[in-house]
Amino acid sequence: MTQRAHEPASAPKPITSLQNEKVKAIRALEMRKVRKETGLFVAEGASILITAREHGFAPETLVFKTGTAPSGVARGFVDWALGAGAECLEVNEAVLGKLASKDNPQNMLAVFRQRWRAARDATKAVSAELWLVLEEVRDSGNLGTIIRTVDAVGASGVILIGNCCDPYARECVRATMGSVFAVPLVKMTREAFLSWRAAWKGEIIGTHLDGQEDFRKVQPGGPVLLLMGSEGPGLSDELARTCTHLIKIPMAGQLDSLNLAVAAGLVLYQLRGPNLAP
Amino acid sequence: MTQRAHEPASAPKPITSLQNEKVKAIRALEMRKVRKETGLFVAEGASILITAREHGFAPETLVFKTGTAPSGVARGFVDWALGAGAECLEVNEAVLGKLASKDNPQNMLAVFRQRWRAARDATKAVSAELWLVLEEVRDSGNLGTIIRTVDAVGASGVILIGNCCDPYARECVRATMGSVFAVPLVKMTREAFLSWRAAWKGEIIGTHLDGQEDFRKVQPGGPVLLLMGSEGPGLSDELARTCTHLIKIPMAGQLDSLNLAVAAGLVLYQLRGPNLAP
Repeated sequence: MTQRAHEPASAPKPITSLQNEKVKAIRALEMRKVRKETGLFVAEGASILITAREHGFAPETLVFKTGTAPSGVARGFVDWALGAGAECLEVNEAVLGKLASKDNPQNMLAVFRQRWRAARDATKAVSAELWLVLEEVRDSGNLGTIIRTVDAVGASGVILIGNCCDPYARECVRATMGSVFAVPLVKMTREAFLSWRAAWKGEIIGTHLDGQEDFRKVQPGGPVLLLMGSEGPGLSDELARTCTHLIKIPMAGQLDSLNLAVAAGLVLYQLRGPNLAP
Repeated sequence: MTQRAHEPASAPKPITSLQNEKVKAIRALEMRKVRKETGLFVAEGASILITAREHGFAPETLVFKTGTAPSGVARGFVDWALGAGAECLEVNEAVLGKLASKDNPQNMLAVFRQRWRAARDATKAVSAELWLVLEEVRDSGNLGTIIRTVDAVGASGVILIGNCCDPYARECVRATMGSVFAVPLVKMTREAFLSWRAAWKGEIIGTHLDGQEDFRKVQPGGPVLLLMGSEGPGLSDELARTCTHLIKIPMAGQLDSLNLAVAAGLVLYQLRGPNLAP
């Protein structure tokens, strides 16, 4: 310990105890309540961390497996993290096992600060703008997949209305494949949204069981809000009433719904199609 | 026990012990190995069971929570199951807790026999035929979502090539929302597929990173095989070479892939679009 104490404060700190307070604090970020209180979240794996770096995020804490730092990839991350003033924790297999996800554990993870945006001035929406507005979406995997698709079509971002699941939950972050660092995220109450929406100059398109317009016919010229409801009940009446178009996705047979992420993908590609070069 | 023994054999059997052999046998179906050996699988929840009934499936075993049978919905299921010669197990909360899924437990579940189809005679493919061929898909949730979309567009079915995840796994069955009972499922080795494919008269379209054709331009007239690879590596070279078209889904920015279920949804809607009434 004495020897360690003479090292620069910024050197990686070895941790082998599951009871270490820093380890406990990172584990606690599995709880939504703690993520909310601290404003932090965890992202796992080299490829997601590369995306974080590309989008100007810097970790608060970087955790990597003992022995991997001398190798090229991990060394680069450690330099990046130390350069950003982050704490670097070198942990053994047991500690990493406690911190990493169970079904696809990675050798490296980092704690980042969440980045929530304020809604942009609705009166100044430009024609290329397309925000996906999700009301009370429940499934973290769906939300993550949707954020990934929003990134893929180059839409403006995602507005979460009401009691949605947390985009910074581990399962969601993983499903975004890194797009959580690229896509602007806004959070609003339904009331705040309705008031903000009143100044919106473009179309407001909602997917709805009662929708009459085939989504494949919709091709608005100006800025767009695309509203989609939760996996079960769909869009609330209140939000459905605020739409300028209610669209439907045609289906064969007796089915009345698709998976939310698939439905979002179809409509996002329809709306953003002209902007996507072949 | 004596009193119970005099009841007709087909009456629901009350079970309160977690050690009951029937309970253990149902729990064992969580293991892929056991599903493979027995040819059975579990589906949960009233709405999925209704879909099973509509598609001519009958349970081997029906499990419902004590006290729910006198009510309308459960009674109907019990009659259906007993009429089909199934065993009906009336279980207490503790037993149900062991059998039901953890994240969205239902009051009712049933054991069904898996239904695998043989590949249809490839030389007799008709023009409306569209099979989705998945190579080594790994994620149960993705596979379930894809089966649901195949159902939604009225495609012919899904052909699973090589080491795919199990469509009869609990998470997949749930993600299908019942479509696992509606969509024909075929399983083949890659070699068997390549040999079967040799007689296929229509187009063979694969999604591929090296694809040059924009998926939005593809509109074949005849029967189609749509080939998609696994979440990470994509389609193998061997299957890519067998395609008549390699397509790509355009993306903004630096992304090079979508979630597999989203990508499948986009291409399936493109190919089946003309068949889906607005």
